[in-house]
Amino acid sequence: MNEKNIINQIKERENKGALIVISAPSGAGKTTLCHMLIKELPSAEFSISVTSRQPRAGEVDGRDYVFVNEEDFKKRVKEGRMLEWAQVHGNYYGTSKKFVETRLNKGLYVILDIDVQGGLQVKEKFPEAILIFVLPPSMEELKNRLKNRKQDSSGEIKKRLKNSYEEMNYLSKYDYLVINDNLTEALKDIKAIIRADKLKYKK
Amino acid sequence: MNEKNIINQIKERENKGALIVISAPSGAGKTTLCHMLIKELPSAEFSISVTSRQPRAGEVDGRDYVFVNEEDFKKRVKEGRMLEWAQVHGNYYGTSKKFVETRLNKGLYVILDIDVQGGLQVKEKFPEAILIFVLPPSMEELKNRLKNRKQDSSGEIKKRLKNSYEEMNYLSKYDYLVINDNLTEALKDIKAIIRADKLKYKK
Repeated sequence: MNEKNIINQIKERENKGALIVISAPSGAGKTTLCHMLIKELPSAEFSISVTSRQPRAGEVDGRDYVFVNEEDFKKRVKEGRMLEWAQVHGNYYGTSKKFVETRLNKGLYVILDIDVQGGLQVKEKFPEAILIFVLPPSMEELKNRLKNRKQDSSGEIKKRLKNSYEEMNYLSKYDYLVINDNLTEALKDIKAIIRADKLKYKK
Repeated sequence: MNEKNIINQIKERENKGALIVISAPSGAGKTTLCHMLIKELPSAEFSISVTSRQPRAGEVDGRDYVFVNEEDFKKRVKEGRMLEWAQVHGNYYGTSKKFVETRLNKGLYVILDIDVQGGLQVKEKFPEAILIFVLPPSMEELKNRLKNRKQDSSGEIKKRLKNSYEEMNYLSKYDYLVINDNLTEALKDIKAIIRADKLKYKK
C-alpha cells in the first residue's frame, strides 16, 4: 500500500454512494425512520420499485413505481436486471439493478425499504450493501404499537407478530441492529452507520 | 437466533465499552483529535501507559504514566499482562491489559494513542479493538504542517516523513481511515465510527 493507492481509495470513496437496506418488523417505525433519513441526507433517495401490478388512482409511473406488465417483469428477472424481487398476492415487485447503480455512481445513497427476504437477495448480489435491521425495544412494545395504530385486526396483528419472529431468523445476515426506542436516537444510529461505512478501510 | 438471544446481545452491547486505537503520522492532528474526543465523549478516557523510564518533573504516577522498574516491566510482558509494548531509546512503554479490561467492563471507551506497531499488537490480542488511522489530506500538507509547527529540524522532518511512509505499509490492518482535512469533520467521523461499531450485529 503506497500513498498513491491510499489517495485513490479516498477519492473513490468520496465519489461513491452506498446502498442501504432497511428492514424491520411492521410496527418498528421503519417507514418513519426512512422518511426522516431522506429528509436529513440530501444525497439520499428511495429506490423506486418495479411492479407488475396495476397503478392505483393517483399513482404516477416512475415516481411511485415503475409499472411494467408481467411478461416484461419476468424478462427483467431472467436477464438478471433485478437486484431482488418477490411475488406478493399474484403481483411482482422488485428493485432494478440499473436504477441503483446509476445513483451509486453519482455518489448518491439509495435507501431500500424492503423485507428480510429481499435484503438477503441484495446482499448476495451486492455485498457492499449495508443491511440494517430495525427492532422495537421489545416484542411486547411491538404488539402495543400494532394495537395502538388501530390499523389491523387482532388476527392480522397475530400474523404480523408471527412474521416478525420468522424474520428474526435471518437477522444474522444483517450488518447492523438498530433499536428504535426513540426515533431521534435511532436516526442518529443510522446516520452514524452510513458515515462510518464510508470510512472503512477497504482491504 | 431467537428473541431472547437478540435481547441479550443488545443488553450486552449497551453495557460494554470499546477499545479505540488511534494512530497517525506525526503532524496529522491525532493528539488534538484525541483530546477533543475525550472532551465530547464523557465515557471515554485515555489509557495510561506503563513505563520503565524515570518520571520527569511534574509527572504523577498513575496519572501521566504508571512508573515501574525495568525488571517489573519485563515480568509483566513475560506474564502476558501487556496488550502491547515497545522499547524506545532504551525505555519500555506499554499498555496494561487489566487497565483496559476493567474500564471496558464498566462500559467505558478506552482511547489508545499509539503507533502502528502497537496498534497491530493490540489487534492481535484483542480483535474487537477498533483501529483508526488518521491521515492528513496529503503528504504535501503533512510536510507543511511539520514545518509550520517549527518543532523539528529539517533532518527530523525528513525522518518523520520517512516513518510516515513506512507506517502506511501497515495501514491495511486498520479498520478505518479518517482524513483530517478539517478537525470538526474528522472528529465527527471518529464519533460515527464508535457509535456504529456498537450497532454491528455480532455473528
